[in-house]
Amino acid sequence: MKISARNQLEGRVVAIEAGPINAKVVVDAGGQKITSIISLDALEELGIKEGATVTALFKASSVLLLA
Amino acid sequence: MKISARNQLEGRVVAIEAGPINAKVVVDAGGQKITSIISLDALEELGIKEGATVTALFKASSVLLLA
Amino acid sequence: MKISARNQLEGRVVAIEAGPINAKVVVDAGGQKITSIISLDALEELGIKEGATVTALFKASSVLLLA
Amino acid sequence: MKISARNQLEGRVVAIEAGPINAKVVVDAGGQKITSIISLDALEELGIKEGATVTALFKASSVLLLA
Amino acid sequence: MKISARNQLEGRVVAIEAGPINAKVVVDAGGQKITSIISLDALEELGIKEGATVTALFKASSVLLLA
Amino acid sequence: MKISARNQLEGRVVAIEAGPINAKVVVDAGGQKITSIISLDALEELGIKEGATVTALFKASSVLLLA
Repeated sequence: MKISARNQLEGRVVAIEAGPINAKVVVDAGGQKITSIISLDALEELGIKEGATVTALFKASSVLLLA
Repeated sequence: MKISARNQLEGRVVAIEAGPINAKVVVDAGGQKITSIISLDALEELGIKEGATVTALFKASSVLLLA
Repeated sequence: MKISARNQLEGRVVAIEAGPINAKVVVDAGGQKITSIISLDALEELGIKEGATVTALFKASSVLLLA
Repeated sequence: MKISARNQLEGRVVAIEAGPINAKVVVDAGGQKITSIISLDALEELGIKEGATVTALFKASSVLLLA
Repeated sequence: MKISARNQLEGRVVAIEAGPINAKVVVDAGGQKITSIISLDALEELGIKEGATVTALFKASSVLLLA
Repeated sequence: MKISARNQLEGRVVAIEAGPINAKVVVDAGGQKITSIISLDALEELGIKEGATVTALFKASSVLLLA
């Protein structure tokens, strides 16, 4: 299966912080830290733990540029 | 000045494709390709050219995880 | 593999309209029309054609409510 | 009044979970579960309760496709 | 009817630019210029013309802060 | 430095509410109230306090129109 998101960075989970509704997951993708905020349900359903390999996905339209 | 976006990846512009309303800009951030779609106005106002150094910004809440 | 997006609706592609940067894809998901705008690159890379079965994914945080 | 969002699914609220800043609202739209995360202020201002009829709105540009 | 988006700015359309898939609409909201990119379908369906009064809606979660 | 976001409204912070993962920040931008939800980390890292001057940034593609 393929996903339309243009940005797909594979990495290792290095930090997780769960709140009542959302959870923060930090992924080390080839030395770049990518922070994701997903729902607590997703964190639990995907069984994401520190050290796990995940792919961080984000649409090109959600990226701003600073120049 | 600092920006609240948790994800800030600096890199070099390696491809630009302009459309009537939007423009696609691909950034090589430490070997990771990040694709951004910004408005054509922004591309022109920021004077973004291939080879330029830019920072790709995106909110943690726009990142999905695949596991 | 599982994805963190809370909204995942499977359906059949019923319309496609390609522009220079983006493409509009309409999916019939159990009688509900879901419209997606993805990049032209993604449309081509995923080989999406009318009649194909796809899953429309969107984060809970991108949904507004009208009441 | 009309709204520009291409995706507008009417349904019945089947679950609500409130946090300090955000709230999760699950809507049954013609048999499809749609999960929304809105601000706690919005939940209270709109007076959204279980069983209420609401419309879930999301932009076409926030939808990814898996194929 | 009420909408969950925390940001709702009423104003007058001062510029419109239509592309094949999307359209740019600039709204003068109390002296602040708000730029929206909506789908071409929405522009036509809502019959948005220069001089029209519209409300620009955006979620609190889509706003970044620079400080 | 310039940012690609088409919407950049400068204003004064008039309210802050911190949760475990996110924080709500309300900005008075020339009489218009703009609500932002940013991560708690960002609130702390940027040292945002009530009365501070900040700029609220949001992409044109995150704005819906009601007409």
